[in-house]
Amino acid sequence: MLRQILVLGAGKSTAYLLDYLLEKAAEESLHITIADLQPQNIAPHIANHQACSVVGLDIFNIEERQKLVQKATLVISMLPASLHIQVAKDCVSFKKHLVTASYVSDELLGLNKQVKDNKLVFMNEIGLDPGIDHMSAMQVIDSIREKGGKMLLFESFTGGLVAPESDTNLWNYKFTWNPRNVVVAGQGGAAKFIQEGTYKYIPYNKLFRRTEFFNVEGFGRFEGYANRDSLKYREAYGLQDVLTLYRGTMRRVGFSKAWNMLVELGMTDDSYTIENSENMSYRAFTNLFLPYSPTDSVELKLRHYLKIDQDDVMWGKLLELHLFDDTKFITLKNGTPAQILQQILEQSWTLDKDDKDMIVMYHKFGYSLNGENKQIDSNMVALGKNQTHTAMAKTVGLPVAMAALLILNNKIKTYGVQIPITKEVYDPILKELQNFGIVFKEYNTEYKGYNSAKLHS
Amino acid sequence: MLRQILVLGAGKSTAYLLDYLLEKAAEESLHITIADLQPQNIAPHIANHQACSVVGLDIFNIEERQKLVQKATLVISMLPASLHIQVAKDCVSFKKHLVTASYVSDELLGLNKQVKDNKLVFMNEIGLDPGIDHMSAMQVIDSIREKGGKMLLFESFTGGLVAPESDTNLWNYKFTWNPRNVVVAGQGGAAKFIQEGTYKYIPYNKLFRRTEFFNVEGFGRFEGYANRDSLKYREAYGLQDVLTLYRGTMRRVGFSKAWNMLVELGMTDDSYTIENSENMSYRAFTNLFLPYSPTDSVELKLRHYLKIDQDDVMWGKLLELHLFDDTKFITLKNGTPAQILQQILEQSWTLDKDDKDMIVMYHKFGYSLNGENKQIDSNMVALGKNQTHTAMAKTVGLPVAMAALLILNNKIKTYGVQIPITKEVYDPILKELQNFGIVFKEYNTEYKGYNSAKLHS
Repeated sequence: MLRQILVLGAGKSTAYLLDYLLEKAAEESLHITIADLQPQNIAPHIANHQACSVVGLDIFNIEERQKLVQKATLVISMLPASLHIQVAKDCVSFKKHLVTASYVSDELLGLNKQVKDNKLVFMNEIGLDPGIDHMSAMQVIDSIREKGGKMLLFESFTGGLVAPESDTNLWNYKFTWNPRNVVVAGQGGAAKFIQEGTYKYIPYNKLFRRTEFFNVEGFGRFEGYANRDSLKYREAYGLQDVLTLYRGTMRRVGFSKAWNMLVELGMTDDSYTIENSENMSYRAFTNLFLPYSPTDSVELKLRHYLKIDQDDVMWGKLLELHLFDDTKFITLKNGTPAQILQQILEQSWTLDKDDKDMIVMYHKFGYSLNGENKQIDSNMVALGKNQTHTAMAKTVGLPVAMAALLILNNKIKTYGVQIPITKEVYDPILKELQNFGIVFKEYNTEYKGYNSAKLHS
Repeated sequence: MLRQILVLGAGKSTAYLLDYLLEKAAEESLHITIADLQPQNIAPHIANHQACSVVGLDIFNIEERQKLVQKATLVISMLPASLHIQVAKDCVSFKKHLVTASYVSDELLGLNKQVKDNKLVFMNEIGLDPGIDHMSAMQVIDSIREKGGKMLLFESFTGGLVAPESDTNLWNYKFTWNPRNVVVAGQGGAAKFIQEGTYKYIPYNKLFRRTEFFNVEGFGRFEGYANRDSLKYREAYGLQDVLTLYRGTMRRVGFSKAWNMLVELGMTDDSYTIENSENMSYRAFTNLFLPYSPTDSVELKLRHYLKIDQDDVMWGKLLELHLFDDTKFITLKNGTPAQILQQILEQSWTLDKDDKDMIVMYHKFGYSLNGENKQIDSNMVALGKNQTHTAMAKTVGLPVAMAALLILNNKIKTYGVQIPITKEVYDPILKELQNFGIVFKEYNTEYKGYNSAKLHS
């Protein structure tokens, strides 16, 4: 019997997702209906595939939307996260499974009983981060527990970066995903985590100066800064008693210290607007944040303000962004500093046509087993092929597609609103991801606890 | 004919206010009714005065409140600012004048037409800051304009500090008013002002490192940091074309740089709570904001984190607050860092029984006259007598009392919701304040524009 999969939203993370499902269509008896606001943008090799139909859909058109949901066996929602809940309610009404790559909202969790009662699977957070991070972490954590080990430490970092061959600027960074999220990252409260049994808090103004370093074989050195809430999955992962729990974002070494200059200046502030920002030069924008002087240059004022030595590479990073250029102009009207900074950064950090992206993930698992403390480090690097088949689209889209098929084939048997932290989900998906080059390498290392470098100093 | 003044709220800023009115009661035919939630706290020499009645009043008891307003000729509200609007509406209904020391809310301003139509004066912002700052600034600004001068620069700073004889700690600071306002000062957005025709913005994390210095004859050196919105009274003062507009808060030199250590640590954050803060030692609280180390002391971690040299007085300031003490404990449950810091500071910065407070105000007026640029600096220092007759109570209460009398005597003839920026208000009040030692000293100095120190360097 033909199984109908409805894919809502065919945005930039769906290239691999659709390729995967269409390739499996014949052997798995699948038919894919793609519903998008702009169906004309869908690539011909997908739109013209015999197992695929494409329809135009305004997601707020309830009648059309429900008609499509009704015809499906399973719905994949790649819509913006805030729109999932309407689709989820339709899926409950018409008894359809649902897969999304987004965070579980409280509203969605509220449907859990109905979802279970109707024997449905609502699988969420099954993209990259959240998604592959959950699965790869839980696989190691569960295996440690199966051996009788007790978890002591868990750290997890993910970064969306540029591939080494496209890494051409001093920041070692380009926008490979939503630039806005990068500019306002870490705002809205202190970062909270646990180190060796003690809660720790980092205010925004120190967040990018409290990094940790990682070496990834074949790819060199990275750094990580703390996410807002490292404790989010403490219960879900069963890590209530763990001594260290730390989650963060990965960048190339030196990015965070340089980014902190922009934070110190106040350029990442999103809480007020700059009057008359339109047609303001980049130089005038920079000068907004510096003391007035009738004689000194913007350059010297900034060097002095941020204490940047004459030979410091930080200076080159600022120059590279054209922050002192009086021939480049902001086009935003009354933008916030963060919005204006984003526009300035997009000038420098937009991927070139041939640029490729890179995903890096790094976990640390500390545990005790038979009275001995041990540690496993595990990491994964995925490289993009081109601007459509990006590492981001691959790592977000493939787990979603694989989960959809596992649900249809009754391999995922647990009903309810869930995230991929159980063996029946992560084992088959992590195994299959290896065929696509998404492979975690594990290293047994000496456990020294958090911040071990200082132990012997 | 006896004139009835109703004073709502007899809190700590009303000592001078009540003394003044009662002393004038006989010659001015006044009777004062004080309505307070806790009338038993009112000093006997006031409560037993023949021109004074004291009544207990819950301000939310509409009937009782309106009965009192109805009997009055003029109402003085010293209630918390948020409660003024109900009283103001009563005053409109029963056609009574109103005087407050608080900021004009939009809601209050909405009553302006009714107030004017009823030929009433609603005088607000007539305490110290706002109040004396408005009056003393406008008197100089108007006199410059009368001579044909054009304003180029206006800067204004006020500080509530301790008197020199009570200045006994390394911070040169004790709480003389609401401690909470001191701990969260500057939060909620960037400070915005104008310097030499250019907008300038200072983010919170740099606010306390961008100070300006002032010398006050006989009292030494002070510093000022920027208020959130220096542009607030631009229209009211008629300073739309001014090149420099800067308002701020005064502290003794060195306070702000030291305070910035607490900001950098994240201790002033009021956006999240610390679990289990109750019974946490001061030392453990400090350690929450520092990186974990299995070996290093909290002291060395903090010195390294904030780059404090061994011989830096900043270190002594931290020690003085007992931040490394593991025998002192927080009693707050689940407090925010700011709330906990306030509790810690109150241990060190509460006035001793014999301590006296001090108010300092400093204005700069730059202007051009007959093709020449000139500057007037003006400052005022007021000292407290004791813990009841504080400089704060004096500078807040006296202008309120004087304005009330001027309104009753038809010396203030302009109707409507207003602030004290007109000659008919500031001239008589500033003159009379001199009898109480509240005197502005003016100095003609060379005008060099903002940040003139750098001009010749």
